[in-house]
Amino acid sequence: MSHNVSAKSRRQAPHVELRTGMPYANLIANQRLFTAVVGEHFGVSPDDCIPTTGATGAIEAVRNHVFRTKLKACPTVLTVCPGYWRARESFEGFGFKMIDLRTEPLDFSIDETALVAKAGAANPDLLYLSLPNNPTGAIFDPEVIIAGVPEKTAVVIDLTLPSRAIDARTLTRELYRKFGGRRNLFLVGSTSKSHGTAEYRVGWAVCANSEDADRLRKENRSGIASVSIMEAIKRLERGSTVMGLIESSFALLRDGEKGGGFELVTPERMAETGYVLIRARAGIEELRSVFDRRGIHVMWGSEFGLTDEYVRLETLEPRNIKIFVEAMNSLPHEKTVGLISKMSKG
Amino acid sequence: MSHNVSAKSRRQAPHVELRTGMPYANLIANQRLFTAVVGEHFGVSPDDCIPTTGATGAIEAVRNHVFRTKLKACPTVLTVCPGYWRARESFEGFGFKMIDLRTEPLDFSIDETALVAKAGAANPDLLYLSLPNNPTGAIFDPEVIIAGVPEKTAVVIDLTLPSRAIDARTLTRELYRKFGGRRNLFLVGSTSKSHGTAEYRVGWAVCANSEDADRLRKENRSGIASVSIMEAIKRLERGSTVMGLIESSFALLRDGEKGGGFELVTPERMAETGYVLIRARAGIEELRSVFDRRGIHVMWGSEFGLTDEYVRLETLEPRNIKIFVEAMNSLPHEKTVGLISKMSKG
Repeated sequence: MSHNVSAKSRRQAPHVELRTGMPYANLIANQRLFTAVVGEHFGVSPDDCIPTTGATGAIEAVRNHVFRTKLKACPTVLTVCPGYWRARESFEGFGFKMIDLRTEPLDFSIDETALVAKAGAANPDLLYLSLPNNPTGAIFDPEVIIAGVPEKTAVVIDLTLPSRAIDARTLTRELYRKFGGRRNLFLVGSTSKSHGTAEYRVGWAVCANSEDADRLRKENRSGIASVSIMEAIKRLERGSTVMGLIESSFALLRDGEKGGGFELVTPERMAETGYVLIRARAGIEELRSVFDRRGIHVMWGSEFGLTDEYVRLETLEPRNIKIFVEAMNSLPHEKTVGLISKMSKG
Repeated sequence: MSHNVSAKSRRQAPHVELRTGMPYANLIANQRLFTAVVGEHFGVSPDDCIPTTGATGAIEAVRNHVFRTKLKACPTVLTVCPGYWRARESFEGFGFKMIDLRTEPLDFSIDETALVAKAGAANPDLLYLSLPNNPTGAIFDPEVIIAGVPEKTAVVIDLTLPSRAIDARTLTRELYRKFGGRRNLFLVGSTSKSHGTAEYRVGWAVCANSEDADRLRKENRSGIASVSIMEAIKRLERGSTVMGLIESSFALLRDGEKGGGFELVTPERMAETGYVLIRARAGIEELRSVFDRRGIHVMWGSEFGLTDEYVRLETLEPRNIKIFVEAMNSLPHEKTVGLISKMSKG
C-alpha cells in the first residue's frame, strides 16, 4: 500500500530534474524510447536492441566487443570481396586481419557452402556480411551461414541496404527467433539508406543473445542524438520511399547498357539495392578523364578490392545515373579523350 | 599545366555524386568542417582533432584505443573518487579496473603530488580526470600531473564542464603546445554543458600526438551527425550562456546553506561548475521521502562512490535549485517525515 501512495504522489509531483539536468534526462529517456520503437518494429525484445550511430556504429560496437572478448592483437574477420568498404575500414582500422572469399570467379555470386567451408577451415573470430552485398547486390541465405559457421565465430549480418528482394524487417525477426540465444550473433541495420537518415547517424544492433546485449549496453554509454532518434522514428512510421528511385536507376542502367559503354554486374541471385557494381568497357584513363570533365564522382574498384575497370555507383539519384549512362555511352565517340589523357600524364 | 586545366574543369563542372550519395558525401565533408572549426577554436591542428559523440564518445574512443594497444583483459584506470559517474561506467563496462584516489579525507581537494605518486606506484594504463572535477568542482594543475605520470600511462583530461575559473579553450591550447607530441595524451571536451548540446552528442578528442590522432581516426569510421555538427558550430560562435545560470544556482545554494538543512562541499581549490556536491544534514530516509513527495531527482552519493548523505545536483536550472533549497530547509519542520518513512518500510 505504501508503494501505491508513493507511486501516486510521484505521478502528481512535477519532475524537478537535478540529477543530470533535463537534456541528459531526455537523452537517456530517448535511448529507451528508440529501443522500444526498434523492438516493436522488428518484433524483438527492446532489451536486445542497442542504439548505434548508424550501421557503422553497430559494426564498430560489435568489433570492439569481439576484440575485447577475443583479446588478440589481430583478430580475424571472414568476409566476401568485394564487400562494404567502410566495414573493412572499421575492421582494419582496429587491427583486424581480413580473410576474403573472393566472389569474382563466381560472377560475384556468394556461395554459402564455400563460405561455411572457409569459416570452418579458418575459424575466424568474426564473420561480416552485408545482405544484399555492397556493392554487387548479391544475396544469400543467411540461415545456412549462421547455422554453418563455428559456434565461437561472431556473426554480423548487416541488413542496412534496402531492396524489394530482402525484407529486412521480416528477416531480422525471423533470424532473431530462429537463432535466439546464439552468442555473438548481431543483426545490424539503420534507416540511413532506406529512410534517408545517413547524416543523422542512427541505427541499431539487434542481439540474438541477451547477455551480449547487456554487455554491448555497458560498453557503449554515450547514446545517440535525440534529434536523430526522433527523425528515425518519424521516418520509420512514414515508410521507405527509396524503392522507386532504385528501380528507376536500374531501369536507366539496363537500358543504357545497350549503348555498349558499360556492363551491369548481375550475380545470379541478386537484389536491386542502394549501390550497383559496373564494369566499364573503356580504358581506365578514358574513364578518369570523362568523369573528371563531367564532375562525376564514383567509387573506384580498387577502393573495395577490385581493379578500376569496375566502379560502384549509388542508385538513389536516378538523375545522376542518367548523367553517368550518357557519359559512358559517349566515350567511343569522344575523339579528344586519348589526347587529354596523354596531356594529363605530361 | 595539365593539372591546372584539370582543376579548372573541376571547378566548372557540377558535382555528380555517385560515389556514396549526397548524404554520405555531406556527412564526410562535415566531419572535416568540424575538425577545422574545433582546430581553429582551440588553436590546434585540425588533423589532431577527432569528432566524437560528446565527451563520453571521446572517452570511449580513447578507452578502446588504449585497450587495443595494451591488450590486457583488465587494463587499469587511475582516477579520483568521487568522479564522473559516466566515465566510470564506460571504463568498467569495458572491463577496466578502477584505481581510486579517494579525495574525501582531504575535503575533496585533489592533491597533484599524491596523484602522481599513486600513478608512479600503480603504473596504470590510463589516467582519467575531469577538470573541474565532477561533481565536486575541485580543480588542479593538469601540467603537474601530465608531466609527473609514467610515460606509458595514457592521460585523458576531460574539459567538458564549464566554469569561470578554468578557461577550457586556453587550457586546451596550452596543454597541446606544452605537451605536443606526447603519446597518449588526450584533451577531451564537448559543447554539451557549456553550449547546451548534450542531446546532440557532439564533442572531440584533441590528441597531443598526431600518430595517435591518425589511429583514432582509423578506429572510428562512423562520424557524428551533420545536424549535431551544425548546431555545435552555431553555438560555439554564439558563445556560452551558462555561466550566469551556474552563478545564480551557487548564490541560491550559498544563501540556502544558512537555513541549516544542507552543506555545500567546497574543496579548497574549486570552480563553480555544472554540478555541485551537497551534504545533507537530515537522515537518508527523510531525504528520500521529501524528494519523492516533491518530485526532486538527484544523483545519490552511492552512485559515484560516496554514501547517500551526499547528493549531486545539476546547476544549470536555478529554478530547480530553489525548489531543492526549500525542500532541504523545510526538513526539520516537517513532522510527518518520520511517519511516512516508517510506513514505506511496512
